[in-house]
Amino acid sequence: MTKKAIILLSGGLDSATCLAIAKDMGFECYAMSFRYGQRHTVELDAAKKVADAMGVKEHIVIDINLGTIGGSALTADIEVPKHHKVEDMGKDIPITYVPARNTIFLSFALAWGEVLHIKDIFIGVNALDYSGYPDCRPEYIESYENMANFATKLGTEGEKIKIHTPLISMTKGEIVKTGVELGVDYSLTHTCYDPDENGRSCGVCDSCLLRLKGFEEYGMRDPIDYM
Amino acid sequence: MTKKAIILLSGGLDSATCLAIAKDMGFECYAMSFRYGQRHTVELDAAKKVADAMGVKEHIVIDINLGTIGGSALTADIEVPKHHKVEDMGKDIPITYVPARNTIFLSFALAWGEVLHIKDIFIGVNALDYSGYPDCRPEYIESYENMANFATKLGTEGEKIKIHTPLISMTKGEIVKTGVELGVDYSLTHTCYDPDENGRSCGVCDSCLLRLKGFEEYGMRDPIDYM
Repeated sequence: MTKKAIILLSGGLDSATCLAIAKDMGFECYAMSFRYGQRHTVELDAAKKVADAMGVKEHIVIDINLGTIGGSALTADIEVPKHHKVEDMGKDIPITYVPARNTIFLSFALAWGEVLHIKDIFIGVNALDYSGYPDCRPEYIESYENMANFATKLGTEGEKIKIHTPLISMTKGEIVKTGVELGVDYSLTHTCYDPDENGRSCGVCDSCLLRLKGFEEYGMRDPIDYM
Repeated sequence: MTKKAIILLSGGLDSATCLAIAKDMGFECYAMSFRYGQRHTVELDAAKKVADAMGVKEHIVIDINLGTIGGSALTADIEVPKHHKVEDMGKDIPITYVPARNTIFLSFALAWGEVLHIKDIFIGVNALDYSGYPDCRPEYIESYENMANFATKLGTEGEKIKIHTPLISMTKGEIVKTGVELGVDYSLTHTCYDPDENGRSCGVCDSCLLRLKGFEEYGMRDPIDYM
């Protein structure tokens, strides 16, 4: 029987790598993306390209409106912070943190898993580089997995739901290395929090800085365009 | 300082009673409803009326599309089962179960709580009458609460998030009694899974049967219109 998995796919470096890992583990992949009031949709275009390039079985985009709730620079009219070095990034929870985002995303994956009878869910969270986000920590993922097994028909029928986080303790350099070895075409991905109208990345938001650090650590030029 | 709470409000008997309880406990109430691809929107109208009548501080409606995911008689084109007595209702998980619905709803409440700095969330789940739904059981709620405290800034800053389920071990009769004592106007509420075009309730879906049983147990006529 084919093993199936749901992969949360933002179209960024991490989720594209996560998808490649799931595929390499032999899973037939169902990708799920979200239109959640982001200020830009270039990342959804990237998700589609990545999903197509990696031959996923199905890719769905869920519309939700986190904008109604507010509270993040990614969905509200708050300026995205710019830095020049990773070391300048704050140690606190950044303003680009979207409240309960991973919890919401995983809950939709859980629902889709119920319908498709899929008990393996992949999410590309990373605890090292995004230490400021509460919902990227291993203890969060464990507690989510525990809850998921109480929440669902699938979980209560004895099949254990698993939240896979293959990137959780990797450095950005290790993520890039893994993806390159698995054939990820990083030119299709998009990471920037604040791209220009042509979709070019800013190179100075926290997300760009971490991405660039990853390529630098691995010793490869990032194939996407910067302003 | 005013105590604040978020209340998940569907506009049905249970959530209206839950809101009344939260208010009675001294909470300033923020109500949250969902447009989730229900086949009817009469319940959202009811939610608005209930929220207004009970003087909530704010009422927001979140648009999500569970229809994309499918799998339930409430959001897909599957016939809603009809019975004539509560005893005829199945013991299995009913087809009206919406996959991971409470998990999704609570996750949005969690997000809104992060933004408003509210750590008390009320949900009108009931373990007795809806024994077929995995996400209405106490062990589910406990595991959710545990997860919520890892998931959020609020939870990690030492303030404990609490998921209140005041109705969880009440019978439907006790729920109606409590609501009546707290002044809930049940004529504003809506419970039916399958109302007609005038919003009148069918009286034979599982949800109507349980509601009618509640009024019968309490010894009061249900004030809403039935077909």
